[in-house]
Amino acid sequence: MDDIYFEDVVPGTTLHAGPYVISEQELMRFAAAWDPMPMHVDKAYAEKHGGLTAPGTYLLAVKLKLVHSLPLRRTVIASIGYDEVRFHRPVRAGESLNLMLEWTGKRRSESKPDRGIVKGRYALVDAAGEAVLSHLDTVLMRLRYPNV
Amino acid sequence: MDDIYFEDVVPGTTLHAGPYVISEQELMRFAAAWDPMPMHVDKAYAEKHGGLTAPGTYLLAVKLKLVHSLPLRRTVIASIGYDEVRFHRPVRAGESLNLMLEWTGKRRSESKPDRGIVKGRYALVDAAGEAVLSHLDTVLMRLRYPNV
Repeated sequence: MDDIYFEDVVPGTTLHAGPYVISEQELMRFAAAWDPMPMHVDKAYAEKHGGLTAPGTYLLAVKLKLVHSLPLRRTVIASIGYDEVRFHRPVRAGESLNLMLEWTGKRRSESKPDRGIVKGRYALVDAAGEAVLSHLDTVLMRLRYPNV
Repeated sequence: MDDIYFEDVVPGTTLHAGPYVISEQELMRFAAAWDPMPMHVDKAYAEKHGGLTAPGTYLLAVKLKLVHSLPLRRTVIASIGYDEVRFHRPVRAGESLNLMLEWTGKRRSESKPDRGIVKGRYALVDAAGEAVLSHLDTVLMRLRYPNV
């Protein structure tokens, strides 16, 4: 797929990436480093509560990795911030997740002619198509033709 | 410090943790795994733009690690979600960051008597006291005395 520039973003359209299978080893390693809650790192404890669950921040990282499989690396300059980040339910090892990215709006920058502000709704969805993680993101994106 | 239960949360008060020094090696390793943008992983590219910057998701992970130095591990059940996540400026290797957590509100759960809903504002602040990352978080927290 060609690089997606500001001009290519059509609000209302959706991009897809994945699947990504949550591995127990990766989940536990991430949690041990950043979020060592018992339900993320202690298998004996977690087995009494339905099994290990994925840290929310790990799900944000998985989402980001899937975003990198879309042709945005050269055109997204930075994220300004996320809104409405929701962890809809616990995610467990072995689940297969897909990324859905729906563009929700865009406008050109008033101060910098080489870029625009693009809004999207990002979701990791499970095998049933239900979101397990979702959030809005506002990014700065390069224009293909900044002088037009 | 004793475990912080729902009853101990006083809106308007602030907890502190840190410092955490951003290491170039850790920043690059995290970025290589989850967010391999040139400004996070390519030193030659980054040097032309003021140096490597930290992925926003890495800053969220650092924030979470600092939260774990507060006595919340046994009392926070889960995060429902984040709001108003803002990446205020690029963060670079070598910076020393501190966590500020201000409680902003709380109420008891209407359905489950053993827990409450607690809101807080989390910020990573730099040496000058300016926020580089901030967000609101809504968590479920255990009551010390669920039967009172």
